[in-house]
Amino acid sequence: MKKVNVILFSEFELLDATGPIEIFSRLADYQVTCFSENGGLITSAQGVQLQTTPFLTIDPRGILLIPGGKGTRRLVDNDQYLSQLKQLSIEAEYVLTVCTGAALLAKTGLLNNQRATTNKLAFSWVKSVNQNVKWVEQARWVVSRNIYTSSGVSAGMDMVLGFIADRHDQQLAKQVAREIEYNWHEDPDVDPFAITE
Amino acid sequence: MKKVNVILFSEFELLDATGPIEIFSRLADYQVTCFSENGGLITSAQGVQLQTTPFLTIDPRGILLIPGGKGTRRLVDNDQYLSQLKQLSIEAEYVLTVCTGAALLAKTGLLNNQRATTNKLAFSWVKSVNQNVKWVEQARWVVSRNIYTSSGVSAGMDMVLGFIADRHDQQLAKQVAREIEYNWHEDPDVDPFAITE
Repeated sequence: MKKVNVILFSEFELLDATGPIEIFSRLADYQVTCFSENGGLITSAQGVQLQTTPFLTIDPRGILLIPGGKGTRRLVDNDQYLSQLKQLSIEAEYVLTVCTGAALLAKTGLLNNQRATTNKLAFSWVKSVNQNVKWVEQARWVVSRNIYTSSGVSAGMDMVLGFIADRHDQQLAKQVAREIEYNWHEDPDVDPFAITE
Repeated sequence: MKKVNVILFSEFELLDATGPIEIFSRLADYQVTCFSENGGLITSAQGVQLQTTPFLTIDPRGILLIPGGKGTRRLVDNDQYLSQLKQLSIEAEYVLTVCTGAALLAKTGLLNNQRATTNKLAFSWVKSVNQNVKWVEQARWVVSRNIYTSSGVSAGMDMVLGFIADRHDQQLAKQVAREIEYNWHEDPDVDPFAITE
């Protein structure tokens, strides 16, 4: 079984996490678990509470998924949290971020000199968190070595389908998209939400 | 505040519920709460656990959202559950179903002689639950009086954006779609996932 370790924190963006979870769960050989620093119920920015298991119990050798959301604005200043996230990211086989989840990963330094993207409506803030990242302003998602970063909220689903296409094949990704009746935006370089001035 | 009462049950489909919740939560005057028959943690078909409040505490005058998922296969035979759901649906201002959530509402009889749709991959099963419903085989979502029924999983997001367009205006729906960087499938009558033989 391939492990998908989803990192939740107070005021995470619900769909950033649950869109990818829905997709990964459709694959027979992937096992999704929600984690948080101390375990227990975690409240999303939408007020929905999800049950989690503490970081201590993670087997980090798998796919680490980091959602965005309001909560990231606080966590970029929490060094203790970031050092744990950095360690989990180093040990993960792949790291996937959605939306402003990229700000957390950027703050660990692991995106330095790498190409990455994030939510277009929060772009300038995320960019300000770490200017040593090669931020891509027009991309639905970006792959850089073993790190996938996606644009805002729904883009996380497109990215995870892209991840499945890369690891398995395009047909499997298309089949999952069909199962959830999702119009997969297949091209990572076409970004209808990029802010062009 | 407009209340959005989301009904969860064991093995509900995660994105059926969380896609609409993400969208409704972006509107300042809507308040989303998750309910279940007895309250407590409810496990989705994906193994994710969400906290809920018991049916007893619902103020049903609002929007009732019924997701689909494997759990519906069991609940269509649970008369006690269905009679509670029927009462909540009668008292609701609007009832919205996603995917096989339509099977539950159909079984209450409230869709009799009404047009409705559901997941295209589960269509024949849902149809068999109640043949007195005017099942629409090609539709992203269907509006019939105060009842909205959507096709599978992701279609729930399109339907909720359509609901917002109907109640408020198209521009607000488009703005929310842009905020979550979602390519809204705007036309309820165009269904790329209909099974045409």
